[in-house]
Amino acid sequence: MIKKYIFGNPFPTDAVIKDIEKSEGKLPYFETDGKGSFTCELSENDVVYGLGEQVRGINKRGWEYIGWNYDNPNHQEDTRSLYGAHNFIIVQGEKTFGAFFDYAGKIVFDIGYTKRNIMNIRADKNDLAVYIIDGESEKDIVKQFRQIIGRSYIPPFWAFGYGQSRWGYKNEKDIKEVAEKYKSAGIPLDSIYLDIDYMERYKDFTVDKERFPDLEKLVRDMKNDGIHLVPIIDAGVRIEEGYDVYEEGVENNYFCKNADGENFVGAVWPGRVHFPDFLNPKTREWFGEKYSVLTKLGIDGFWNDMNEPAIFYTEDRLAETLEKIEELTSGNMGIDEYFTFTGMVAGLNGNKGDYDKFYHNVDGKMIKHSDVHNLYGMNMTRSAFEALQKIEPEKRTLFFSRSSYIGAHRYGGIWQGDNKSWWSHILQSMQQLPALNMSGFIFTGCDTGGFGNDTTEDLMLRWLQYSLFTPLFRNHSADGTREQELYQFDNVSSTAEMIKIRYSLIPYLYSEFLKAVLNDEMMFRPIAFDFPDDKNSQQTEDQLFVGNEIMIAPVYRQNALGRYVYLPEEMMLVRMRKYNDFETEILPAGHHYVNAGLDELVFFIRKGKAVPMCEPAENTANIDFNSIKLVGYSDSRYELYKDNGISPNPEESLEIISLS
Amino acid sequence: MIKKYIFGNPFPTDAVIKDIEKSEGKLPYFETDGKGSFTCELSENDVVYGLGEQVRGINKRGWEYIGWNYDNPNHQEDTRSLYGAHNFIIVQGEKTFGAFFDYAGKIVFDIGYTKRNIMNIRADKNDLAVYIIDGESEKDIVKQFRQIIGRSYIPPFWAFGYGQSRWGYKNEKDIKEVAEKYKSAGIPLDSIYLDIDYMERYKDFTVDKERFPDLEKLVRDMKNDGIHLVPIIDAGVRIEEGYDVYEEGVENNYFCKNADGENFVGAVWPGRVHFPDFLNPKTREWFGEKYSVLTKLGIDGFWNDMNEPAIFYTEDRLAETLEKIEELTSGNMGIDEYFTFTGMVAGLNGNKGDYDKFYHNVDGKMIKHSDVHNLYGMNMTRSAFEALQKIEPEKRTLFFSRSSYIGAHRYGGIWQGDNKSWWSHILQSMQQLPALNMSGFIFTGCDTGGFGNDTTEDLMLRWLQYSLFTPLFRNHSADGTREQELYQFDNVSSTAEMIKIRYSLIPYLYSEFLKAVLNDEMMFRPIAFDFPDDKNSQQTEDQLFVGNEIMIAPVYRQNALGRYVYLPEEMMLVRMRKYNDFETEILPAGHHYVNAGLDELVFFIRKGKAVPMCEPAENTANIDFNSIKLVGYSDSRYELYKDNGISPNPEESLEIISLS
Repeated sequence: MIKKYIFGNPFPTDAVIKDIEKSEGKLPYFETDGKGSFTCELSENDVVYGLGEQVRGINKRGWEYIGWNYDNPNHQEDTRSLYGAHNFIIVQGEKTFGAFFDYAGKIVFDIGYTKRNIMNIRADKNDLAVYIIDGESEKDIVKQFRQIIGRSYIPPFWAFGYGQSRWGYKNEKDIKEVAEKYKSAGIPLDSIYLDIDYMERYKDFTVDKERFPDLEKLVRDMKNDGIHLVPIIDAGVRIEEGYDVYEEGVENNYFCKNADGENFVGAVWPGRVHFPDFLNPKTREWFGEKYSVLTKLGIDGFWNDMNEPAIFYTEDRLAETLEKIEELTSGNMGIDEYFTFTGMVAGLNGNKGDYDKFYHNVDGKMIKHSDVHNLYGMNMTRSAFEALQKIEPEKRTLFFSRSSYIGAHRYGGIWQGDNKSWWSHILQSMQQLPALNMSGFIFTGCDTGGFGNDTTEDLMLRWLQYSLFTPLFRNHSADGTREQELYQFDNVSSTAEMIKIRYSLIPYLYSEFLKAVLNDEMMFRPIAFDFPDDKNSQQTEDQLFVGNEIMIAPVYRQNALGRYVYLPEEMMLVRMRKYNDFETEILPAGHHYVNAGLDELVFFIRKGKAVPMCEPAENTANIDFNSIKLVGYSDSRYELYKDNGISPNPEESLEIISLS
Repeated sequence: MIKKYIFGNPFPTDAVIKDIEKSEGKLPYFETDGKGSFTCELSENDVVYGLGEQVRGINKRGWEYIGWNYDNPNHQEDTRSLYGAHNFIIVQGEKTFGAFFDYAGKIVFDIGYTKRNIMNIRADKNDLAVYIIDGESEKDIVKQFRQIIGRSYIPPFWAFGYGQSRWGYKNEKDIKEVAEKYKSAGIPLDSIYLDIDYMERYKDFTVDKERFPDLEKLVRDMKNDGIHLVPIIDAGVRIEEGYDVYEEGVENNYFCKNADGENFVGAVWPGRVHFPDFLNPKTREWFGEKYSVLTKLGIDGFWNDMNEPAIFYTEDRLAETLEKIEELTSGNMGIDEYFTFTGMVAGLNGNKGDYDKFYHNVDGKMIKHSDVHNLYGMNMTRSAFEALQKIEPEKRTLFFSRSSYIGAHRYGGIWQGDNKSWWSHILQSMQQLPALNMSGFIFTGCDTGGFGNDTTEDLMLRWLQYSLFTPLFRNHSADGTREQELYQFDNVSSTAEMIKIRYSLIPYLYSEFLKAVLNDEMMFRPIAFDFPDDKNSQQTEDQLFVGNEIMIAPVYRQNALGRYVYLPEEMMLVRMRKYNDFETEILPAGHHYVNAGLDELVFFIRKGKAVPMCEPAENTANIDFNSIKLVGYSDSRYELYKDNGISPNPEESLEIISLS
């Protein structure tokens, strides 16, 4: 049962695609002040789930979160905003309900931060729609919500393969080397990512001819080896005379404008750029069509980056800052001046004030960007998705984005942003997954091994043991950090086995992914969602169900050779060194300490269930579904969802195969 | 058995105060290249303990740490240096030994970072002493080491009381308000700290007369209420004509010099400063004498800060930076220029190159600072300690420092630096304690509630439940963060009870502190140190023994109402809401899940032992030792160490009382 309440004049976000009649009468569960602030008293043991891409635990109580898409490389406990705004929560406890605050500007979720038992949600303006969902259970509430926001994006089957990425691959030679070294190490690989250096001066839809003299041939050669190249596309368009994207954008008023009606200038990788006005359908159509520049070369996957949009600086703020620096440094710069100086420089990036300076053209009306900020990334991916449906109508294209809003889940996946090589970021990724699934983001995963900072061999091995369960499974790292392709480590054989186990599990993972998408369910669930009356499950924040058969409980502490696991019911522990070298053991419900050597993947199969596993393959194209065997409880069955992995409409080729 | 090996011409650090003859022959356990690099192969399951104030777990394997004292507010997993250099490690496993790398410059500890099973330690120069300690056990190795580095500092008894601090108390009124509000909330309090704002323009040994018109009276009034005021002293001396400390320092050449023999200029809180040359005994004597300016007003405790020394910037690096900024920002600033720009500004603070620019006068020889960098903070505290022994020969003065080197433990305590209001920083503090104890730092603790970023009520409550066991127990926070005096929260009564429990435990904590100091033992121990053959204990990184009777296992996860605990032997669980409202339960050895409500302190008493607890008091002066009762196993005894809490030599008044 979903009710929609309207406050003021909400901007249409397109998050909800089902028509729901506006409810009159008082908003339930919350008190509102008529100024965009909504307050709800929590009972001491109520749990609050949701908010998608945010820090802290599965239970969001005890912090303040801000829905404001932000290029923030610091995913720390004190972080309030990351790249996506996913304003959906479920309160579970004395009262249980879901709530979606459909608002595209800045919105604060104070969930027991200021006062432990008060949840206060406040939008910058009182122009929003609030959806209240009553249901039988958390799972039911999620299903109802997912039904109104539309089916989640399904990538091509090959996107479930393992991918290698690094900001720092400079040229064709670097890419070939990655492919060769993976091959000679015997590690399966389906994709290599092209970060910003493939472009000419960071210009979207260009290829640097010196470094990639024949990208089309490279794409073809790689594809012959089963490897897809996946280039990055950034939001900002470089200002450069003679550059077609820039010139067409200017000519047709496709860019965001400043208050004077001039094209707004921000600066990102290329320096000065204009930002395509993705809220304008014409801009979307135009920009989306540009992806064909690369699809013509055989490219069939993209990642959209910097689309919060990130702004390193604006020229006027930079000018002000430089002027102020001169003043601050002219005398004896003490602490006040010094902090002002360093704070201003650090504050250039993603400065909130800069988002007040530009406008979108929506049906001829100028809409201030900050009022619709959180929709930008979503509409960039929408632009690509809708265009590619025309350009490549017969097949799915891989898309994932950094920035998103609910609704973006229909057009592509997201990755969890620029994390770090921290042990705690294994857990952080894991704790986000259910919240992302609730909001429709099923094709997701984190930068395995960590993007920023230096990784270690043991961290990578443990990370793989977690990430090998996530739909998007990519090793990615930043320029200047320790190289972390799997062949860089001494113990290549253990990492190789983990990747092979991933490939053995792809039939299961893809099947469970399809079930989640087609049935509006969550692929990754807190264990409390399946055991709602169990208080211990509610306290369990470092285990998840993956689909209906598997529970994961990864090791995420350095030097740990085991961990505690809570079983809400009897399960089968699987301790796996290779896809075909493992033991199983039935454990009763309750608390357990479970050993897990560094090269051992430990996971659990639910009581009475079994998981299909195939022979590993060097890439997804070579996966042999005929080699599938069930691992798990004897006499159990598994219903395998399978399609051709490529048709835009999965139902066209969907098979449901009963395995036993 | 300790052997000393000399490489090159080590600078005398004064870390070791016992004469040990130089060993000839080959250094055991390590291969050395003769250039300051020492390599030791580790077995897969060897554990490496030590390094004092560093991030990551109790077992230091799997990261690279750098001994280089650094004003670093980011205590993250990727951090390599914090405020202290404590170059002592213990390897435990196939071979077990201790090693102290006595080197005052930069030294890298690659402990299985580059290669999982290789430990490589490399000093910038091959001028160091290496001490190798063989012993029966980790505890024996620690004891031997502690015996050569000298007895740890003992603060006055009142320093075991609870203290309130905040960078942001501006004047007398603020201080009085804190005292009054604690009093009216019924929360015990022994000290209030004066951060930088009590000074006149951040000048050491001055008092701002407008904000503190009569500090002497304030000190007296507060002391009548049982509250000690503890001012901060910074390392840098403001350059200001007419300021006596500055003028005397210039006149007598007490400051560090640059290569041209001029007084070196750095900038910190006051802007431009000179740095006292604390390696020069005359400077130490002179600077130390200055503390009497404040002791004359009744002050009896100090914290020494910024003594790495922190340098916000130097004028020539600032000038270079400004010049470069002009160049970088003159055209279209793209990513390379932008990162250079922001990186240069962020890199002004604590820039390693600046430490090459100044010199110490050691017996008439100019010694480059970077070669002896890690000794600076230690010698600042030594300066204070030695002077106060003369100024106040009859009593102990409270000292603790931010920066330290082994040896500094004889002159004062340390606090664990500028942490953040992160849940993970409870665990981080806890994991440092044993490593600090090994190196002699027993009087220590962290900023309870977190210094940087915003705290929450539940975080504070859980943090208190940990910190109430640490000798230094101070609530401290940074200007601009959420106010976190305990009366700021709704649930004052629960926090008040935790402080009262602290006061009930002070007889025990002080007694165990004295035992650790007088017997060269560790007050805080990994449980593996007491159960060396137990593999589960070795894996336990979030529990500690506190003295000989108590094991702590604090809750450090948000929204957790319990946690897993491993008991290496039978113990008594104590679940305490108030000092006199608690239950006990005997738990057998093994793994347990233990419930712990937010307002419940849970700790453990070891088998057959008991803990003395007294009635709480509003401050340490009012603690009634006659009210002590034993809590724990019946028929057990406790040996209470007690002294008058003030005599510089504790043996003078030491009583050992057998309680039963």
